[in-house]
Amino acid sequence: MRATVMYRAGDVRIENVADATIVNPTDAVVRITRACICGSDLWPYNLMEPVKTGRRMGHEAIGVVEAVGADVRTLKVGDVVVMPFAYSDGTCMFCAEGLNTSCIHGGFFGTGGEAAGAQAEALRVPQADGTLVALPVRADDALMPSLLTLSDVMGTGHHAARAARVGYGKRAAVVGDGAVGLCGVIAARRLGAEQIIVLGRHPDRIALAKAFGATDIVSERGEEAVERVRALTGGFGVHCVLECVGTEQAIRTAIGIARPGGAVGRVGVPHYEAIPASEQMFYNNVTVNGGPAPVRAYIEELLPDVLAGKIEPGRVFDRVVSLDEVPDGYRAMNERRSIKVMVKP
Amino acid sequence: MRATVMYRAGDVRIENVADATIVNPTDAVVRITRACICGSDLWPYNLMEPVKTGRRMGHEAIGVVEAVGADVRTLKVGDVVVMPFAYSDGTCMFCAEGLNTSCIHGGFFGTGGEAAGAQAEALRVPQADGTLVALPVRADDALMPSLLTLSDVMGTGHHAARAARVGYGKRAAVVGDGAVGLCGVIAARRLGAEQIIVLGRHPDRIALAKAFGATDIVSERGEEAVERVRALTGGFGVHCVLECVGTEQAIRTAIGIARPGGAVGRVGVPHYEAIPASEQMFYNNVTVNGGPAPVRAYIEELLPDVLAGKIEPGRVFDRVVSLDEVPDGYRAMNERRSIKVMVKP
Repeated sequence: MRATVMYRAGDVRIENVADATIVNPTDAVVRITRACICGSDLWPYNLMEPVKTGRRMGHEAIGVVEAVGADVRTLKVGDVVVMPFAYSDGTCMFCAEGLNTSCIHGGFFGTGGEAAGAQAEALRVPQADGTLVALPVRADDALMPSLLTLSDVMGTGHHAARAARVGYGKRAAVVGDGAVGLCGVIAARRLGAEQIIVLGRHPDRIALAKAFGATDIVSERGEEAVERVRALTGGFGVHCVLECVGTEQAIRTAIGIARPGGAVGRVGVPHYEAIPASEQMFYNNVTVNGGPAPVRAYIEELLPDVLAGKIEPGRVFDRVVSLDEVPDGYRAMNERRSIKVMVKP
Repeated sequence: MRATVMYRAGDVRIENVADATIVNPTDAVVRITRACICGSDLWPYNLMEPVKTGRRMGHEAIGVVEAVGADVRTLKVGDVVVMPFAYSDGTCMFCAEGLNTSCIHGGFFGTGGEAAGAQAEALRVPQADGTLVALPVRADDALMPSLLTLSDVMGTGHHAARAARVGYGKRAAVVGDGAVGLCGVIAARRLGAEQIIVLGRHPDRIALAKAFGATDIVSERGEEAVERVRALTGGFGVHCVLECVGTEQAIRTAIGIARPGGAVGRVGVPHYEAIPASEQMFYNNVTVNGGPAPVRAYIEELLPDVLAGKIEPGRVFDRVVSLDEVPDGYRAMNERRSIKVMVKP
């Protein structure tokens, strides 16, 4: 079968690899019908040191179950399933608490660990019962783009909103206008935020943010952005900040625009050593929260709204590529020519 | 009148200063009957750069109202009152939310700002109606030591516990065995923690921690402390960490011993630029929360338990000094010969 392999920064190849097969009795093999390129894939795309064997890429997918191991109980061959970016057993104490990304038998797809990547024709999914969610639709359903976002970006935007304690009537700000930030706008609106300020500057993304419910746009950066958000919020900042970038400047800005007693939900994979503005955060009693989103736990909450068409996170996809075109997809996203790329293997 | 003035690190003097008087119509003048030396006073005691006019010290007090401004409505001369370490108007939106330390007309006592210090014979208290709480006891009541802790350390320990999300059945750890850490033990027990691990090493403090409800003591530091806490908690760490020190090592340890999905409540005034272990915090979805405790808001919750003798935070005082002996009190606390010093002017 064919799969996406990254060898070092900028070097993404589509190669023939060994077919995905059942290894453990709790595995399933999924034939991928839709995958994605993620903003987080751009970190290795820009920074990865050379590795000889390469790293299998991709962690978001919808597909059809092709085989199941002897211990798989809840899935059968032919099921259409959505796959969270992390696998989890669904039974450990962390899964029971809804924190599947800390599952004691869990791990992440497409990070060079035990599990391979989803930008491929097929994929072995460990802990299949705990990980995969069967969908009540056919593999070619028109809702596929939005359903596909449940594997990562919509759940991650929702996690940012939850971690930032968005609720009815709150003022929220979203740092970053990438796919996760845009899904954060959907999540903030869905959870009742009264004001949703987006910090971003790309016209196509801003247009989508407004369509999703953003009430204000701040295109400034750094201290100027902080001043602008304060001016938009009566001088004090917002209750809830969704930090959807992961740079030091982004988290510094996020802390700077939080009002006293506010919360920052960070979901951008942090590319900084330490959280800056610690003193400002302390004196304002600002919370910093967040991490990898337990999207598996959120699918049950978000799926009904996607199926009912109440939210349309699939609108973040503005390009569809075949497996062979995946390297082009990386380039397009890296050059900000595309918000999010869907892969149809 | 006489008051405590610090001129630079190590240089604390008792001097004659201008009498405290009403300046604004919302002021009260309080004759101090009990004050304290605080662990946070040791930071300037060790680090303060020389200043010509000196800094008036002290932010914890009980006293008797001696005069009130024309606009003071809820207090009268002769009332016995407890004074939070921060003054606040009690009416702004932050006060209404219970975050009095961010009051838009507020400030801190004994930090060189508008308000003077409480290690003195008397003190002008701004925003008296919002700040002071009248006590239903006489100025010489036997409960005075415990009531006095409501001005800072008991409320601060409680804030650490709240920020760390202590609740029924949770596993908690307290980093630091100073007066705030010991009050954090009281707070964690009061809020229902099942396990309370104290990280500390001073025998007298450890004995008190056990009396207050600590279930385990960890005397190691750094990585060894993290290993020990994990061993005591089934390998995963605690749900709730009360960080009551304020050093970089303390917050690093706090994040290290938090289980996935756990929370760190930090109340030790941070003496570090940035929060370390940001990546570990992120991947474990650990929350960092906390700041100056809104002790004014907590007095209403904690006072009944103090009056009923259900909690005895006053046991943290192990030395009483006169105003003239305040410099000795600083030395005793700085050399860890005393847990917490009460001042009787």
